[in-house]
Order: sequence, then C-alpha cells, then structure tokens
Amino acid sequence: MTRTAGGAMAAEIAEQPAQWRTLLADAGPELDAVAATIRRYDPHTVLLVARGTSDHAALYAKYLVEIRLGKAAGLVSPSTMTAYGARPDFRGVLMIAVSQSGGSPDLVRSLEVARDCGALTVAVTNNAASDLARAAAAHVDVLAGPERAVAATKSYTAQLLALHQLLDRVGGGDGAAAAPLPDLGHAVLERGGEIAALASRYRFAQRMVTTGRGYSYPTAREAALKLMETAYLSAQAFSAADLLHGPLAMIDPLVPVLAVVADGIGGRAMAPVLPRLAERGADVCIVGAAPDAHVVLPAGAPEELSPLLEILPFQLLALHVAVERGGDPDAPRGLAKVTETL
Amino acid sequence: MTRTAGGAMAAEIAEQPAQWRTLLADAGPELDAVAATIRRYDPHTVLLVARGTSDHAALYAKYLVEIRLGKAAGLVSPSTMTAYGARPDFRGVLMIAVSQSGGSPDLVRSLEVARDCGALTVAVTNNAASDLARAAAAHVDVLAGPERAVAATKSYTAQLLALHQLLDRVGGGDGAAAAPLPDLGHAVLERGGEIAALASRYRFAQRMVTTGRGYSYPTAREAALKLMETAYLSAQAFSAADLLHGPLAMIDPLVPVLAVVADGIGGRAMAPVLPRLAERGADVCIVGAAPDAHVVLPAGAPEELSPLLEILPFQLLALHVAVERGGDPDAPRGLAKVTETL
Repeated sequence: MTRTAGGAMAAEIAEQPAQWRTLLADAGPELDAVAATIRRYDPHTVLLVARGTSDHAALYAKYLVEIRLGKAAGLVSPSTMTAYGARPDFRGVLMIAVSQSGGSPDLVRSLEVARDCGALTVAVTNNAASDLARAAAAHVDVLAGPERAVAATKSYTAQLLALHQLLDRVGGGDGAAAAPLPDLGHAVLERGGEIAALASRYRFAQRMVTTGRGYSYPTAREAALKLMETAYLSAQAFSAADLLHGPLAMIDPLVPVLAVVADGIGGRAMAPVLPRLAERGADVCIVGAAPDAHVVLPAGAPEELSPLLEILPFQLLALHVAVERGGDPDAPRGLAKVTETL
Repeated sequence: MTRTAGGAMAAEIAEQPAQWRTLLADAGPELDAVAATIRRYDPHTVLLVARGTSDHAALYAKYLVEIRLGKAAGLVSPSTMTAYGARPDFRGVLMIAVSQSGGSPDLVRSLEVARDCGALTVAVTNNAASDLARAAAAHVDVLAGPERAVAATKSYTAQLLALHQLLDRVGGGDGAAAAPLPDLGHAVLERGGEIAALASRYRFAQRMVTTGRGYSYPTAREAALKLMETAYLSAQAFSAADLLHGPLAMIDPLVPVLAVVADGIGGRAMAPVLPRLAERGADVCIVGAAPDAHVVLPAGAPEELSPLLEILPFQLLALHVAVERGGDPDAPRGLAKVTETL
C-alpha cells in the first residue's frame, strides 16, 4: 500500500472539528462528575504536570486557572518528585496530569507522589486504560481516538477543549461557549491552501520565532514544537513580553517571526511588540483575527477558546514545510509516539 | 576614551566571586529578618514572578521551594494580573518578585495585585530604592552593585545566591553551604582561556541547543538567553527530558549542543539523554564535574549551589562569541538595560 508522507498527520489535523463535536456531545457527564469532585475539594492551588505537546495544554489550563478560577497555579517540574525525591505538602492542592498516551513513567510517578502527599489528582488523557488514568483519583478522557502520527495534533486540541470544559464547570459554567468551535474549525481548515503557499516561503528557513501573549502564548509554544519535530526548524517560542527582555537582539531579517494576534486582551497586548520587531527588520507573519492579518482566523470564538483555532494553521504549516523538505511528519527522525522519561 | 567591546560585561563577569563574598558577609541580618517573616506567615504555596534573566533565577528558586522546602510552587504569568485583570485568592501564598532594576511596571503591578489579594510579597532586586522594592512587604537586596552591561551577569548569580540564602533560612538552615563558592568561582574564571578557545569553534554557528536537568535546567535557560542577546545565536534551552519529547528531531550535526552535567541528581538524570543525542549525530559539549567533561567545573559545591558555577563558562562563551562576531555585548542591538513591559 502506498502512503503519502504525512498522511496520518494530515488526516488527524482534518479530523479535529468533528472530534471536538464528539467531545462536546459525549463528555458532559464525566466532566460534570470530575468538576463536582474538584468543587467539593475546593483546592487553594492547582498544579499541572505534563511533557511536550501536553505541556502546552497544561500551560493553557494554567491561564484558565489564574484568570477564570482566580486560584494560584503552577507547572510542576516532574524531576523534583521523581529524581530529587521531593515529598511536598500538597494538602489543598489539585494536581492535574496531562498526557496523550498516559504512559510516561515520570508523570505516573508524579501523580502517585502528589496523591500520597495529600493532593487531589486528576488525569487528562486519550487512553482511559492507561497507567496515568489508573493512578489518578479522577480521569477525563479527551476522546480524540487513536493518534497514529508521532506529531500530536488532534490530541492537543482535544486536551485544550477537555481542560476548558472541565475548568469552566469547576467555575460554575456549563461549557456552552465552545459550541461554535467545530464550525469555526472547519472554516479555518477550508483555507488550508493559503498555508500550503506560506509553507513554500519558509522552505529554506533554518530559524524561526513564534510569539503570542496570554492565552495565545501556549499556541506559540506548541507551534514552535510542531515546526521543530516535523520540519526540523530551530523554532523558538517567546511570550511577547519576554521577547523584549533579551531575545529581540537575535532577530534580523533572516529570522522569520510568526506572531499570534488574537481578537482580545492577549492580542491587544501585542501592540507594543510589533513596532519593536519592525525596528529589527523582522519578517513578521501575523496569524489572527484582524482583516489585515496574513493568516486570518474567523471571528466568533471567545478569546479563551481561540487557541483551538489558532493552532490549526501552524499544524498545517509544520506538515507542509516538512513534506516540502522531504521529511515524513508521521515518523520524525529520532522520535517514537510514546516517549518514556523518568 | 577608547573602550574594548564588552568591557563592562567582562568586568562584571570577573567581579562575581567577590560580590558573592560581599553578599555572604553583609546580607545575613536582612535575610534573617525576611526569612523570619516568611516562617511566621507559613505559606502553603510560593509563586514567583520575573522576566528575562531574573526569570531564570526565579526558576531556580522554584526548584529550591519544591525540593528544599517541600511546598507547592509556580511561576506566575504577569499578564494574567496586568492584562487580564485576574484577582486570584492568594491568602496563604508567598509571592516573590525577582528583578535586577526593580523597574518593570508589570512586575510592580503584579506584586501590588498579589498583596491586595492576600499574598505576602517579597521583592528580590539590585535596587533597594526601586518601585518594586517599595511595593513589596519585604525586600532582599542582592548587593551586586551597579550593572552597566545590558546583558545581566553578576546580578543573575547574585539573585541565585540571595534566593538560596533566603530559602535555606526559611527551611531552618543558616546558608553556610555557600561559603566555598567565592573560591570555587575564582577557580572557574581562572580557566577562561579554555572558553575563549571554545568560542572560536562556534564562531559561525547560527543555531545552538543548551540542555540540563533539575537545578541545572535554569542554567541551560540562562545560557541560551546570554547567547541570544549578545551573540545573536538562535540558542534554544530544553530540560533534557523535554528534549526527548519532540525537539530531538531537530538535532543534527550542524546544531551544536551544550549540555550541563552537574555532579549530583540532575547530572545523573542526563544519562539517558546523551546516547539519544549521539544517535542524532549531535556535536555535544559537556560542561560539568566529570573529569572527561569538555569544560570541567571544580568539585566542592553542593548540587543546589552548582548553578552559580555552571553559568560562568556560558557567560564567558557568550561574551567571546559576541566579540568575535564584531558585536558589543555591553550594548546589544535593539535592547535597553531596563525593559519596561506592561
């Protein structure tokens, strides 16, 4: 059987809107139950633990916890519990582990330690039978279906949506704001031809910078990871504020910049950054809601859900650049689908 | 008056051991008082807020809080409080802001919001008269003296040392483990000629990866920032575990890797990573305590203090590569000494 390079990744990118629809239709009872457990526990602090793509979903959840729930939040370094043997006092802490496979031993161990140290533990995975799901007091299935490409795409947006739906319920909402997302996602993907054209522009780029602020910062991080792991670009992500604290010096006309400028507070906070990039002669491609953006996203999603739409053009860009370069994004060199770190 | 490019940065790198001695000799009473305030408050969670180089000192402190103090810890995204207007419930939270100048409006605002939301606030700065120092309930002066080069060097290690001394006291210690550091720092700097030779090897590199684990991960982050802001390299830092979750695919023989392999748990956790880099044909330079490291660090410091020594060769490397490339690390293009972000 012949196979186009990146066929699985392309198919999984295309599946996303339909899978969001499935999650919104089917996950409600499980989400309600886990949210009720969290509300009863009433944590003072929410910690998240994850690796790779899932870590960017965890970063998104950190913004939701800080902004939407008004609680202290942090991303845990698994090594403190696995390698250094830390046994922190986690009474009153909610620890959420995020993983596609649920199979990485360091996350399982982190959750076990957190539980033993008094935390309420929740796993958000794509495999209800995984070790991580079993190690947690409660599990949320992101219902993305089997993911075959090594580069995670549909599992990422499924994690974003599941975390949004869970935390919105913890905050007393019903998650209904997400209802327009499947249609909006289709609208983004229908314009994939624009991205294919953009990809040829970066065919010979070696370095790249992605940037965003607020809810769009996780998008910049995940975009850079996709470009690294499939197109082998040295893609670096910065919060737009951090970019000004040093990395800006590295920008020149040979380091293309992809800036996420969403419709909302995070996007408006990009305003002071774009002129500074222009001063450095940067080649800036804007992905956002403004009509003069280079890649225009559809209006209609609240800002806190825009990361689901923003990442789609970057997934396509990584796929197309990789294929143009002769790579196979379904099987990037040096990587396996499930990465086991200790 | 003629001036050698990078003269201030070179002088400030050289000053560090003497300034550590000053801090250890003079800061004790202030550190004791702030530590006593924190112990009385007995926080359940410690949050840190910072930008740029100071954010890497904050990351170091996060490891100390998790491992040494056994408390929940996190790095705050300032935008949640400044741009999004979040007003979290921070009762029982200790919020530590870290900044060289103490002048960035977003950090001042974050600390004011945290105080209003119930947190105990502490500022760690190099300027006791700064807005940030005044906004905090308690202040720790890192006593680095005026820093003239835009690329922060001596203020970074002063922050590391001040945070260590503070948090060790919060944990019931007396900070005495740091006593050997000034002599060990001198020993590292005396071997600066090796670093100058190494710099010529990277004269034409465009991309670079730095990596470490545990306490050495902040070193990898700060090393990459120095190389970006002075030598204009696209230098990317990864926790060695995260490197395996995707970015490894990007590594090839043209992307040099600088790996920090300290004497201790973090260094031993690098063992599974180095063969994976070798499989990708990576050009790896090891900075560490083993006799066969390419840049050998002296033994004698406990692992939790090794970041003060580890960063010195990278500061020198960034300086030398920048000068070889005709840049001026005292005044990198596009940057100012005090960066004001909102």
